Formats: sequence, C-alpha cells, structure tokens
Amino acid sequence: MHSLLSTRARQQTTSAIRDLLEQAQRPGIISLAGGLPDPSLFPTDRLADIAAEVAGDADVLQYGLTAGQMGLREHIVATTTAASSTNEVLVTTGSQQALHLLSSVLIDPGDQVVVGDPDYLGALQAFRGSGAELVPVTIDADGLDVAALSSRITAGLRPTFVYVVPHFHNPTGVTLTDTRLTALLELAEQNGFLVVLDDPYRDLGVAGAADEPAHHANAVHLRSVSKVLAPGLRVGWMIGPEWLLEAVERTKQSADLHTSTISQAIAHAAISADWFPDHLAGLQAATREKRDALIGALVDRLGERLTVNRPGGGMFVWATFADGTDTNELLDAALDHNVAFVPGAAFAVAADARTSLRLSWATATPEQLTEAVGRLHAAHAALVSA
Amino acid sequence: MHSLLSTRARQQTTSAIRDLLEQAQRPGIISLAGGLPDPSLFPTDRLADIAAEVAGDADVLQYGLTAGQMGLREHIVATTTAASSTNEVLVTTGSQQALHLLSSVLIDPGDQVVVGDPDYLGALQAFRGSGAELVPVTIDADGLDVAALSSRITAGLRPTFVYVVPHFHNPTGVTLTDTRLTALLELAEQNGFLVVLDDPYRDLGVAGAADEPAHHANAVHLRSVSKVLAPGLRVGWMIGPEWLLEAVERTKQSADLHTSTISQAIAHAAISADWFPDHLAGLQAATREKRDALIGALVDRLGERLTVNRPGGGMFVWATFADGTDTNELLDAALDHNVAFVPGAAFAVAADARTSLRLSWATATPEQLTEAVGRLHAAHAALVSA
Repeated sequence: MHSLLSTRARQQTTSAIRDLLEQAQRPGIISLAGGLPDPSLFPTDRLADIAAEVAGDADVLQYGLTAGQMGLREHIVATTTAASSTNEVLVTTGSQQALHLLSSVLIDPGDQVVVGDPDYLGALQAFRGSGAELVPVTIDADGLDVAALSSRITAGLRPTFVYVVPHFHNPTGVTLTDTRLTALLELAEQNGFLVVLDDPYRDLGVAGAADEPAHHANAVHLRSVSKVLAPGLRVGWMIGPEWLLEAVERTKQSADLHTSTISQAIAHAAISADWFPDHLAGLQAATREKRDALIGALVDRLGERLTVNRPGGGMFVWATFADGTDTNELLDAALDHNVAFVPGAAFAVAADARTSLRLSWATATPEQLTEAVGRLHAAHAALVSA
Repeated sequence: MHSLLSTRARQQTTSAIRDLLEQAQRPGIISLAGGLPDPSLFPTDRLADIAAEVAGDADVLQYGLTAGQMGLREHIVATTTAASSTNEVLVTTGSQQALHLLSSVLIDPGDQVVVGDPDYLGALQAFRGSGAELVPVTIDADGLDVAALSSRITAGLRPTFVYVVPHFHNPTGVTLTDTRLTALLELAEQNGFLVVLDDPYRDLGVAGAADEPAHHANAVHLRSVSKVLAPGLRVGWMIGPEWLLEAVERTKQSADLHTSTISQAIAHAAISADWFPDHLAGLQAATREKRDALIGALVDRLGERLTVNRPGGGMFVWATFADGTDTNELLDAALDHNVAFVPGAAFAVAADARTSLRLSWATATPEQLTEAVGRLHAAHAALVSA
C-alpha cells in the first residue's frame, strides 16, 4: 500500500529537530535544544478569564473568515506601520502555516529561494517541500550578508524570495542591521523579488522590543503570538501586498478553511489587553536574566574552547568550538550527561557547522541553565578524553 | 510582481461556494446556501466553563504533538471500532485540513481520484489543487454507484483513492447502503486503493447517529466536531493505517506544526462530557424538525415542479426542477427575493446538474425555512413569467 504515497510524501523525512526533541524530553534531561517558551511565564489566569468570555460567544464558535477575524486584523492594522488595511493582514495557524502557504503560492519546482546559512529548519523544510532550490547565503554578526547576495544577483541569481529572520535569528541569535535591511529591500525592488521577514522574536529584546521593519511593497512580514503569549494557540499573521494575500487566502481556504476562532479571539483579547505591555516587559526581563545566566556559565566553564555570541534577545545563542569538537558526537555524550542541545549541522545548508551548536535559554530557569552548562562541560571533557 | 506566483496559485480560483456565501450574508436574506450549523444550538455556557478550565493549564498552552493531544486521541480510540491504537488517529485542523493533507500525501499530478457526481466542493478543490484527475461516478438514492465503479475498474481505471461522504452526503443528502460500502471496500482491497470516508454528518441522523463504518485496512475515516459542537474550533481527526498516518504527520508538521491545543482540549472535554449525548439528541431532534419543515414547505409550495429527496439526517436536501428551470438563473431571482441556495452545477463534476439545487436546513429556524420556501416559490414564479 505504501506505493500509493505521492512522490512528495516518499521524499519527506522526519525532521531532525523533532527526533531530537523527543530524546530531549527524557526525564532528568535539561534541554537547551527546543524553542519552547517557559510555561511558567504563560499568563494562565488571564487567559482562563479571556477563554471563558470568548467561548461563551456563539459568533466566536461559528465558521469564520478565511483571512481571519476582523477584530484581530483591525487591531493588527492599528498597531503596525507595515499594513494600512485589513486586506494586507491574514491570520495563519502559527507562523509555520505562513511558511507553508507562501511555499505553495510562490514556489514552482526549481525556483530559487535565498536562505541564510545556517537557518531555521522549519522554513528550510517548507521551501524544500515545494521543490525550491535553496540558495544559501552566509550569516555573520550583522545578519545575512547582503553584499554577497548582491554579487550573486549580479552574477545571474534570480530568487523568488529571500527568507530572513531579522531579529534574534534562529539559530544564530544575530540581528540584521538597518543598513543591510535597507539594502536588501532595495535589491528586492530593483530585481523584482520578495523579502520574507519572519519575525517571531522581535518583542523578546533584552532592552525592549526591537523596531518594526517599515512597510515596503516587496516585504512580507510574519508574526506570531507563540513566543510572547502561548504557542498552543497556533495564531500568527502575515502582512503583505494584497495581490499576494489574495492568493494565500485561496490556498488557506483549501488548507484549513480558517484558523481556530477561539484561538484568534483569545489572542486578540490578550494582545490588546491593558496588562499585555507589562507581560511583555516581564518576558524581556526574564530573557535578559536567562541569556546572561547561560552565556555567563558558558564563558566560565568552557572559556576559550568555545566562541559564544551575545544576542540582544530572542531565545538562542550560537556557539562554536575552537578545538574542533564535532557537536554531533558531543550530543551523544551530552545526552549521557542529561543535557541536550541542537548540533549546528542541523541548520546548515551548505556551510560546515560541525563544530557549532545552538543553545536555547528559553525553557529552563537560570539555575538549570548553569547546571546544564556544567553537564555540557563534563560531556565535553568526557568526549575529549575518550 | 504577480509573475512571482506559482503555477498552482495562478490556476486557483475563488470557490463558488465562498462567493455565494458572501452574497448570502446580505442583511434580510434567509440563506439555505451555507452549511453553517445553527448557532443557537451551540452549548455556549458549557464551552465557556470548559474553556476557562483548559486555558488555565500551562500544558495546554505549550507546543503540542503534531499528531494531536494524547488525551483526545485516547478518547477517540476508546469510542470507535475503526482504530485500535492512538497511532491510527491523527488530529487535524478541521476535516478540510485532512482533505488537504491526504491530497498532498497521496496525489501525484495525473493520479486518478474517484469522486461522486455531484460531490462536496471543498474536496474537489483540494484534490484538483494537487493535480488529481477527478473521475466522477454517479450518485443515486443509495449513494455512489459502486457497480458502475467496478465496471470502470475492470476497464482499466486505477484510482489512488475513492472519496465518499457515506452518511447524509453533501450535497445530495443520500446515505451509502451497507451493501455498497462492503462492495466498495472489497473492490479497494482487491485493487489496492484507499477509500476515504468523509463522515462529518454521521451523528446528525433524525433517528439517532448512523452506524460507524467498521475498521478496514483500506479505509481512511475523517471525522469532525464542526457539525456537532462548534466549527470555529477547527478540530477534526483522521483514522487510518499507520503507514499512511506517519506520512500525514510529517506533512502536517510542515503545514501547521499541530492543531490549536486549546481547541483540542475544549473538543476533548466536550465530547467526553456526561452532557454530550443529550446535546447530540437535541441536535438530532432539531434536525428532524428542520428537515420536515423544509421538505414539507417544498412539497406544499412547489409540488410536482420540484423533485425532492428525504435525507435521513445531515443538513442538506437535493432538489431537481421537473420543468427545466436553470438554477443558476433562479439564484439571481432568489437573491432578489431575499433567499439563497447553491445551484447544483456548483457541485457537478461531469454531470449536468443545471436544474438541481442544494438547500440546507441547518442554519434557519423552522419558521424561517417555511418563509424561505415561500420566497423561493415567488422567485420561481417571477423567473417563469419573465
């Protein structure tokens, strides 16, 4: 019966992230692998009150608009500089669906899509699933190397779109500079491609939310409540030109008709509530505390053997061993020592990221982060001495 | 910039259903067009209590399993004869997502998919979107004409799957007989294809829920809470063989990671609650009352000009004008008279359904249904005399 599967289905393999997360859920493990927000920071009491209110409303329980509930879209328009009309906003079942719908609507097999190297695995999978030819461009401390991209375009590269996580990038933690963003959007305008700005971490800056990229006819903005409210809601949204969103809406109609209206109503009530700015400030303070605990411990324990950056927010730090340690091998030792991370190779497209790793400070407490780094240090020592 | 759209996106057109629904939402219109459940029958107070409870649970708010929450899947396994393990159950963002995922996982461009003629538009669109060659088979009073399908298979037809709405079919209201279902599954086993049993209306029988089709290695069952609880939740599930669900899970991971956990938790608590059987009985009684009101009025007012069937449940009656009335033309006149329905042609694949129409009794009250048929009668009279 397996022969009934489509070519696409037979080519699809389980995500490395997913297999890793399953291992990392073993009892006793401190996981720095996942991108799961800290559940102790969810505003559960507030959400329980909101949920009771919205679920008692028959209008919320009925079928809804494919593009999303008008109230939520109006709130988004009122609080963004990227959209001026609800026709430029479409609610998605999390950012992951936005990536899936954009892939379906923009990619013909063989189309070129520019991604960072390394980059977010969920995006790489979605683009590959539609048959895109991924064109990797280096990411450095200032984000995507736009000058290198420009040279490639001069040499004949014709991307359909360029994918960027502009703030506190997953996996590297870096932020695209304003200068590079401006240059990238100019390139897009001159060469007729889109720039997909996948921006779920923007509000998690340690010194407050990062600035929103302004409206641009070639930009598509992806946002989500997953990192600032609750990922289980599966509520994100796409801001972009109407010609694109009309096509995305037709595809979404067939994909899931619309996003859960209960989830949308809860998200809308929460992000427009008077307590939400304080909630965000709390997340930002926790982000600073956790980031400092993780990086402090890494510097203390692994010192010059490990090069570590210092992201301005988000969830992830990217680290590279100076001693040539292969992080795939280190992961086995780390799991033996009850600590987990994601090896850099999982995010690499063409780059050699064998000596790098991604560590997330999001889920654990500062104390657990310190303990986890101690275990990582022991795992590294065990591997080196083996 | 439109040239950036994929071939698939450029081929996709807005659904006729959707355009019609927009017209039918005009104030003053009684719509027999949509498949919207009656919101006055939503258990809003019960759902408000449940929502408060589940939204206060941090576990519910966190990222969840792609295949769906274990508690909901365990409840499904415990209450079905079609699955014996949670590995045979996958939660979807409504049945529409199940159709979308199955299309992606099973259909290569040019693959043959058997559908009824007429059949559910959302399914036809999903299958066409993956490049399927739709093979229409007649639907009569006993459901899909399985003998005709068998002859086609003898003559060389090699479908990947056969799509069937086994109970109270949309749009025709008919139920596939047990004899035909058995023959269809035997055909599937002998010829190595799947049978997709899309079964959202099963519990809406006027004399109680219809019997569940039993487990079969070639069957895929699609279920949903949309018609029996609240469609806004977007919770459905697929029951099928593990080899298929593994592929569906990989595709869903990229499509939306998982279905709203809040929606899943609400659906789980509701369908396993002690009040749920009474709620279903109430829906069944309302179904009987509304069906009788609609069909009674049609027989009274349009008499022998209109052939009407008498579905055993569901939401839809299928009617055909004996006087050759073109229902596309009638719709214009009907909207002028503030009543809406869906012309049969919207659901036809190869059949000529120009003189048929689908009427839904689901949303309106019995009084409104009677009034709507009066308006339809007036519209018909106006059209005939024009």
